[in-house]
Amino acid sequence: MDRRSFLRATTAGGAAAAATSLAAPAYAQGKRTLTLVTTWGRGLAGVHDSAQYCADQITAATDGQLTVDLKAAGELVGAFEVFDAVSAGQADMYHGVDYYFLGQHPAISFFSQIPFGMTFMEYANWIYHDGGGELSDELYSIFGLKAFSSGNTGPQSGGWFAKEMNSPEDFQGLKFRMPGQGGQVLGKLGASVQNLPGAEVYQALSSGAIDGTEWIGPWADEKAGFQEITKTYYTGGFHEPGPNLNLTMNLDVYESLTPVQQEIVSQVARAGNIWTMSLFMANNSAALQRLQSGGVKVMEFPDSVWDAFGAAAKEVVEESMGDELYARCYDSYMTSLQSSAPWIARSEGTFTAQRNRVLGI
Amino acid sequence: MDRRSFLRATTAGGAAAAATSLAAPAYAQGKRTLTLVTTWGRGLAGVHDSAQYCADQITAATDGQLTVDLKAAGELVGAFEVFDAVSAGQADMYHGVDYYFLGQHPAISFFSQIPFGMTFMEYANWIYHDGGGELSDELYSIFGLKAFSSGNTGPQSGGWFAKEMNSPEDFQGLKFRMPGQGGQVLGKLGASVQNLPGAEVYQALSSGAIDGTEWIGPWADEKAGFQEITKTYYTGGFHEPGPNLNLTMNLDVYESLTPVQQEIVSQVARAGNIWTMSLFMANNSAALQRLQSGGVKVMEFPDSVWDAFGAAAKEVVEESMGDELYARCYDSYMTSLQSSAPWIARSEGTFTAQRNRVLGI
Repeated sequence: MDRRSFLRATTAGGAAAAATSLAAPAYAQGKRTLTLVTTWGRGLAGVHDSAQYCADQITAATDGQLTVDLKAAGELVGAFEVFDAVSAGQADMYHGVDYYFLGQHPAISFFSQIPFGMTFMEYANWIYHDGGGELSDELYSIFGLKAFSSGNTGPQSGGWFAKEMNSPEDFQGLKFRMPGQGGQVLGKLGASVQNLPGAEVYQALSSGAIDGTEWIGPWADEKAGFQEITKTYYTGGFHEPGPNLNLTMNLDVYESLTPVQQEIVSQVARAGNIWTMSLFMANNSAALQRLQSGGVKVMEFPDSVWDAFGAAAKEVVEESMGDELYARCYDSYMTSLQSSAPWIARSEGTFTAQRNRVLGI
Repeated sequence: MDRRSFLRATTAGGAAAAATSLAAPAYAQGKRTLTLVTTWGRGLAGVHDSAQYCADQITAATDGQLTVDLKAAGELVGAFEVFDAVSAGQADMYHGVDYYFLGQHPAISFFSQIPFGMTFMEYANWIYHDGGGELSDELYSIFGLKAFSSGNTGPQSGGWFAKEMNSPEDFQGLKFRMPGQGGQVLGKLGASVQNLPGAEVYQALSSGAIDGTEWIGPWADEKAGFQEITKTYYTGGFHEPGPNLNLTMNLDVYESLTPVQQEIVSQVARAGNIWTMSLFMANNSAALQRLQSGGVKVMEFPDSVWDAFGAAAKEVVEESMGDELYARCYDSYMTSLQSSAPWIARSEGTFTAQRNRVLGI
């Protein structure tokens, strides 16, 4: 039984139960508990905090009229089952990163992350003001869902390697852990890509079963302890420059909320978006300093490696262009990126480069 | 009569009236109208929108229990009078950029913008997670205020010049419009700095009364029409890399709100923060493209000019270090910046530079 069949089987009962309760007309009256499932293990640095923020603030801002009960991965359904569970009404909403669900629809990649894609600010620009929000509604409604951007990990690091990576050829035969489209890109460079669950990565790297791994960023990477195994760390990564975290609600549940409750969910998600992004930045900054103090060598890939990443990423991202909705998302996303990126480079990019140079940062 | 004396005189009546109404115990009952004054003319691109966002979303999310009535600059009090008006209770809250009020306390500069200071993301990091929020509460409570970060214009442009600026010497004798600490920096380079109200800038530049001006960014600058007068435009500016806009409430009014209402104000301000920042970015990106298509030459200052800006900015920022609270804010702000800036440069900076190079952006 493959994963999809399993999920269809296990969520069928939940869907039926939800359909019954959704038919009840008393929703707008009194207090109501909403179940929030997540793709994160309880306590996972930053991302669980982001889900908890949404749960707590929705509960507080509605004075408990919507009381959000967070069930971390495995507590009600598994991490990779949340999409189906909420789509089927087995849970009311989920918090997660949606590239886990590319099997549902390839266009979901634009609402989580594509390789060589948008940063946090570029994505906020697109989703709030430049067409992304409307496309998100169109895509998620196919699955009976309504998604709200509610967090971001910031740029993920290139990863931990046993040796320095000086050319694209160094990736040939490399046993490396990287999930999703990023992993497909490395595959095109000849790497042997593994998609290990987080809990197994440390042991695999330690035993030499893999030659390297990416994880999240300095904060989470330090907690995972990879610096105990190797000291060669590449910060700038091509694969997830600003992965978006969605708070995604069952569409029937969303439409059963009062307009005021809908408004509060929207405002809390936006608040959680900047709160989470800055939480990661604050902790990544401090962790990077500790890693460097502990002897970790912080590296950047040379241009030749970036060129190879770029060519392979273009192939991977364009492989799904046969899907009409994917193609429209691609056009909207790339048009927005082509507009926002030059302005950021010329304003914030110029300023920060000069400020850091002048102040010796 | 100077401005401060005028304000003390005009707000005294309002303060007395407010004290009376504040004593009424019926606050938590029924619907309540809160007056929001702003430092912006009605309809001013982006910044008025940001204030209106706060007004509309607080009203909607509280189901009108708090109905926010926005009075733009001049409709109740003038732009530069909002701080005193809200401090005195003449209005309930204001939306604005607080470097207009450095005369109240020099440390206010850290909660609006210091030259060579933080970008939007660096500020969010500091204010939400790295000590800035606590210092903001301490500072604003001196004036009976409670401030919430609620927007940002993004990096402001270096400005419009009659000729290219190739060395620090080119600023000697230059008649240039720039307010606040940025203007003081240019003064140290020998410029003759003017602080003209926005409505007078176009005419002054057109007539040659000034040699150049900064304004906000491509979106607002294009609306002002400066491209009709000169085609030489410097994007990266040193003076306002990420000016924070505060939604600032009278502290007694804030404390009279229910916990749920306080929570909603906080969440809406955070939502407005990222919504406003991305609104500016979306519109600046499109406007920059139009300006370039119209023949505007987009320039960057050479290193020698940045070095001179930096040395002068250090002098200006350190001139108030005799004030104890200013010195504590400075230490907290600079420690946070020194931590966050290297991580951003190594992650987002590396990625965007490589992505833009590889994709030809």
